[in-house]
Amino acid sequence: MIEYRNLRVAILGGGSVGSQVASLLLEHGAELAARAGAGLELVGVAVRDPKATRDAVIPAELITTDAESLILGADIVVELIGGIEPARTYILQALHSGADVITANKAVLANHGPELFEAAEQVGAQLYYEAAVGGAIPIIRPLRDSLAGDRVKRILGIVNGTTNYILDRMDTWGDDFDEALAEATRLGYAEADPTADIEGFDAAQKASILASLAFHTTVPLDAVHREGITSVIREQVHAARKAGYVVKLLAICERLTDAATGVEGVSARVHPALVPLDHPLAAVHGANNAVFVEAEAAGSLMFYGAGAGGIQTASAVLGDLVSAARRHVAGGPGVAESTHANLPVLPISSVTTRYQITLSVVDEPGVLAAIATLFSDHGVSVEAVSQSVRDGADAPTATLVIVTHEAAESALASTVTALAASPVVSSVVSVLRVEGL
Amino acid sequence: MIEYRNLRVAILGGGSVGSQVASLLLEHGAELAARAGAGLELVGVAVRDPKATRDAVIPAELITTDAESLILGADIVVELIGGIEPARTYILQALHSGADVITANKAVLANHGPELFEAAEQVGAQLYYEAAVGGAIPIIRPLRDSLAGDRVKRILGIVNGTTNYILDRMDTWGDDFDEALAEATRLGYAEADPTADIEGFDAAQKASILASLAFHTTVPLDAVHREGITSVIREQVHAARKAGYVVKLLAICERLTDAATGVEGVSARVHPALVPLDHPLAAVHGANNAVFVEAEAAGSLMFYGAGAGGIQTASAVLGDLVSAARRHVAGGPGVAESTHANLPVLPISSVTTRYQITLSVVDEPGVLAAIATLFSDHGVSVEAVSQSVRDGADAPTATLVIVTHEAAESALASTVTALAASPVVSSVVSVLRVEGL
Repeated sequence: MIEYRNLRVAILGGGSVGSQVASLLLEHGAELAARAGAGLELVGVAVRDPKATRDAVIPAELITTDAESLILGADIVVELIGGIEPARTYILQALHSGADVITANKAVLANHGPELFEAAEQVGAQLYYEAAVGGAIPIIRPLRDSLAGDRVKRILGIVNGTTNYILDRMDTWGDDFDEALAEATRLGYAEADPTADIEGFDAAQKASILASLAFHTTVPLDAVHREGITSVIREQVHAARKAGYVVKLLAICERLTDAATGVEGVSARVHPALVPLDHPLAAVHGANNAVFVEAEAAGSLMFYGAGAGGIQTASAVLGDLVSAARRHVAGGPGVAESTHANLPVLPISSVTTRYQITLSVVDEPGVLAAIATLFSDHGVSVEAVSQSVRDGADAPTATLVIVTHEAAESALASTVTALAASPVVSSVVSVLRVEGL
Repeated sequence: MIEYRNLRVAILGGGSVGSQVASLLLEHGAELAARAGAGLELVGVAVRDPKATRDAVIPAELITTDAESLILGADIVVELIGGIEPARTYILQALHSGADVITANKAVLANHGPELFEAAEQVGAQLYYEAAVGGAIPIIRPLRDSLAGDRVKRILGIVNGTTNYILDRMDTWGDDFDEALAEATRLGYAEADPTADIEGFDAAQKASILASLAFHTTVPLDAVHREGITSVIREQVHAARKAGYVVKLLAICERLTDAATGVEGVSARVHPALVPLDHPLAAVHGANNAVFVEAEAAGSLMFYGAGAGGIQTASAVLGDLVSAARRHVAGGPGVAESTHANLPVLPISSVTTRYQITLSVVDEPGVLAAIATLFSDHGVSVEAVSQSVRDGADAPTATLVIVTHEAAESALASTVTALAASPVVSSVVSVLRVEGL
């Protein structure tokens, strides 16, 4: 029997993830100790309601409502409460007491990351958060360690399973948005109040975390441009597929240079986008997540898996727990979160991207030329046009689907205004950004 | 200007990867130092021929032919020579001198891993090898760290770009094997002597490395069952697609229980296999690599990217370099390679898998029943049969494509022998394993 130094582990939160982590830690303790080189002793699970029913059984003697005492006696604190408070206060208490902290809490990181990382650095502790983005998919460690010698150019992430499930259903089954949302709710993919998911708040938190890490720059949550998927209609999704695309809610983090000012910086944004069908992200179905990373030397990488779920998130938390234990065994301070690059965070108006614009137009000679001229007058270059004609009630109308070259948000906006006012355009049916080309 | 502790980095090998690592290290030195918390000073690049032309320029004053002196003066040694010797000797010298070692050398790891890991453990140094499998794709670190709290059940890897390119061409363009190989050679995906790739030796080395790491067990190279792709014919690939599969060369590492003995162990094998078209691995085209991991808690994960190439491999090496530097800053010993599980390595005869068997049969009543009986007599259960009839020169013949449920290698072998001898079977056209169902 090998004797290991024992590390005292406290879990805060007895919900789905907390109870699974506790249960796996108790069940696989010997195996984890062998991998970590240290014993991982679960000293307690702090919960709000000791009588609540749980996904996995926690021995009664480990359950406590006194989180603060539990924190003070721990070498490693695992925060699985979620939300801002009291999670933020507990994490700070733990770090100030010198404990390493593991969290799956994207909200507290996106809103208070710099404060937490600074607290960790001051005492030489470390804050681990692999579970905060993409559930069990390793993405934090690859960005922090594996790509530490490379330069990330862009991240395109499907980081919210609920919206991916909804959009995938609209694409695969022809559901409209409300039908797909109802099905997501029925299956437990969407919460009773789905706002955080469908309005992109959840994805925006993850974009803030990924952009900060990848670009060694603090990217505050309120600098993340955010659009949800509630205005995406079935007809757009159908038309997208006919044109060779699928609609995905993407978290996009990229380095870019503002064309007007020449300022080099970074941008993070969340919005629905068209993804070409042959792009690896197009094959991410259901509630799965995937993060596509483009780096200068590594080229294109993709990380794929189940994005959420108690047991999957528990896997990521336990991986961090073994890392924290190995760090304790080795000794020395934790690795500080790097913000050395400190690049300017640019607004959405600095972003250039491609657009797909669908127009309903009068079908008569000269219309295409008129529209092409209108685009060129506004400085937007057209890459491809496809036209389909059908008999309208009064006059024959045509549908034009136009894909632009990269254009600035502002140029596109003025183009759309002019299109809407043009006598040859019956209506601007849809405007969507195109990513991944 | 921040002052960092300086770490002395020696590179062994001035080939494609070595020269790119040297060049990136010199170019991005300040950025890497900020991320690592330590300066990374390139003290020399040991080469065989100082006058050779290189992919990236190395300053003349850094080039040396005296590898041993270079090693002795270094904190971190980057071995990019490849092959067994002198790489093995240099790695041991470096570890014995207390230096951390980074290597991209799959051959030396697959053949001498335990010796090298033991040398590292003895002095508290660490051996990093992210670049040895999958080029820039982070797979070693996710297995070692992110999944350290989970239990890996199975790995299905496309870990050889050359064979994936060849099989993808046979599938997409209808090339026969020789045509596809010639094209791979022309494009630089295959070497002048392609044996190591097309016979599966390269993939077997990677399977040995992945299985050892994932299962915390030494899986020697000679315990890896190996079949190459030279006997895969165009017609098989074509028939596979018609049946809803694509042929891939897979490195498969799995936990399993031998049905006959009840022994629980692990298995590693490399062979061509049918992968269902809706499996994420089926979408891995060209010379790309991907590793699909199934873990108890995390579920299914996939890691995807360019598998090889000097610059991609350099990205992985530099990531390891930053990790090694952070470790030096933190102090303490490295994390020993974990072989605590020490599970039995089972032979291919312990493996059960599904098979697709394609038969040319006489088209007359009762044939299907006769063949079904033959399968059942040998203990192999049939999941699906599809039949297509065509007029032969003499008599009408039919092609039967049979997919079995999971069956043991031995049961399948005796079934195939009996099929070949059966009067109703004209020929056994093809037998392929099916994975990923």
